[in-house]
Amino acid sequence: MTTVVENRDELKQRIQQLLAADLVAVNALLSRQFRNPNMFVQDVASHVSRFQGKQIRPILTLLSAEVFSPDAAARENVHRLAAVVEMIHTATLVHDDVIDDASLRRHVSTVHRRWNTETSVLFGDYLFSKAFHLAATTGDAEACRLIGLATDRTCEGELNQIAARLEQSVSERDYFRVIGGKTGHLFAVSCLLGTRAAGGSMVQQTQMKQFGRRIGLAFQIADDVLDLTASAEKTGKDASNDLCNHRLTLPLIRALKTGSHREQQRLKDLMTSIDANDHARLRDDPLVRQGVESAQATAEHFVRRALGNLESLPPCPARDVLAGIARFSVLRSS
Amino acid sequence: MTTVVENRDELKQRIQQLLAADLVAVNALLSRQFRNPNMFVQDVASHVSRFQGKQIRPILTLLSAEVFSPDAAARENVHRLAAVVEMIHTATLVHDDVIDDASLRRHVSTVHRRWNTETSVLFGDYLFSKAFHLAATTGDAEACRLIGLATDRTCEGELNQIAARLEQSVSERDYFRVIGGKTGHLFAVSCLLGTRAAGGSMVQQTQMKQFGRRIGLAFQIADDVLDLTASAEKTGKDASNDLCNHRLTLPLIRALKTGSHREQQRLKDLMTSIDANDHARLRDDPLVRQGVESAQATAEHFVRRALGNLESLPPCPARDVLAGIARFSVLRSS
Repeated sequence: MTTVVENRDELKQRIQQLLAADLVAVNALLSRQFRNPNMFVQDVASHVSRFQGKQIRPILTLLSAEVFSPDAAARENVHRLAAVVEMIHTATLVHDDVIDDASLRRHVSTVHRRWNTETSVLFGDYLFSKAFHLAATTGDAEACRLIGLATDRTCEGELNQIAARLEQSVSERDYFRVIGGKTGHLFAVSCLLGTRAAGGSMVQQTQMKQFGRRIGLAFQIADDVLDLTASAEKTGKDASNDLCNHRLTLPLIRALKTGSHREQQRLKDLMTSIDANDHARLRDDPLVRQGVESAQATAEHFVRRALGNLESLPPCPARDVLAGIARFSVLRSS
Repeated sequence: MTTVVENRDELKQRIQQLLAADLVAVNALLSRQFRNPNMFVQDVASHVSRFQGKQIRPILTLLSAEVFSPDAAARENVHRLAAVVEMIHTATLVHDDVIDDASLRRHVSTVHRRWNTETSVLFGDYLFSKAFHLAATTGDAEACRLIGLATDRTCEGELNQIAARLEQSVSERDYFRVIGGKTGHLFAVSCLLGTRAAGGSMVQQTQMKQFGRRIGLAFQIADDVLDLTASAEKTGKDASNDLCNHRLTLPLIRALKTGSHREQQRLKDLMTSIDANDHARLRDDPLVRQGVESAQATAEHFVRRALGNLESLPPCPARDVLAGIARFSVLRSS
């Protein structure tokens, strides 16, 4: 029997009901990873732990496993793998903040603002290294390989983003290649690792990998919309970070596509401006508003397809919660 | 029977005689890793391949395996592991150049000068990720764990270096903790992985790990001496990189230790100066010259102890070459 999650509060509650003990174990594992005799390393680790968000990637790993009722040994590996995906995600955040020269992350100073670029680069590397090390402690080389493949693709996505910007690309194909790499693959492997560790079949592994990829894409599009439309106060990050870093996201690509040549030029001028007033003007432009709606519709399309992937799973509370996460991934407040 | 390697040219020849086919295989593996449909990624990869030095770390892996005459399957894994340690080393170089804001590496522009900081950070991450991914393709989770542990320690060494600088530490203990982390562990694991993959006993693995660590320390001390005493032309890097980045290395720590309070103050003033003339004055100071000699003696001490570790290995040409590498690690020209 399937029960639909009605709202965001219910989603949170049901995640807690299903995963409370697992999340405690994963977070204990995460904090153990950064107990360090060196006070400086410990300080940076404590600071970075404040960037912690909704932990959507480890929750996906845990839920994907929960569907198959893993035994105690499998559960222990699932906890490790959930911690690994969270650590990799945090590493990318720390490095993204250096790259974007960002000041704030979840209302907290970024590492390179609080300390310096050196500390950010090295601490990000440290997080990556610790993540791969922890993955290897599962004794499962194939899991390590899948994680390595996903992080390869994540880095390629980010490198593609630089290339797209250098070429001033306005193509949707480039945009999807970038977000598929930088977000889709880590979401995909988060689901795949949980399914695999708990004994899901090859078909189920493939379906869950696709589920993860699709909600990753939906999530990233929603994030890009939010970066354009929301205030810094709401996101806890710098306002219009993408615009300031000349990253062209889906709502803007769609806005450019529909406008006349003259309107396109006007929008491009506003996009390349460094003036916050121009960014506000851009946000209020009717073409951009249309672009935002169109991008949101695309995100919803990915959610519907992701829900289709869940049909390969046996009906159970964890599957209902996965469906809830898919549905709410496009309705984000931060 | 043991034959002593007489000079650097002979060392190079004997490495080629023993490892020519292996080095071709490792370098083919390395270039395959970076064939990429994205021209931008390919461009950065080609540029970074020009940083390639003597490949001491993969050579150590290959020689450590060669001692035990690995079969074809073991040899294939040894090649992968040799490529992995080289990729990890290259990743640390790319990130070090961002951190030091260096312009040159082996007479070639650094990545962040040729492109930008973003590209350096991401390409370094990509190298790390590809390295861990390649390690996992050996199917040997324990090798992945050993590599993860070594890179944890490498990052901790670099983070300790920041901490030592923030505290303006002049202690030898801190210095050795830093270089043990940032150089010793990767050398140690390079030897350990080769010994292990080719079937060396636990005792031999421990001895070879220690051998690697000791020549790593000797190598790093020699490198720190060279950074202080040699010109940019000779090293292919920026002159006095350590001084410019306020890193206190062994020759300077020893110089400070022997001087009177007044002499210490004078040396510290020269060290913290950003004027190249002051750096030249520092290099010519009698106390610093003594510090250089004393540091070199310590490096030689590590070499002697490393040679002792080789006694656990059966006598063979690969062992002789390992001894040669140990001896010449402190007589470096670049």
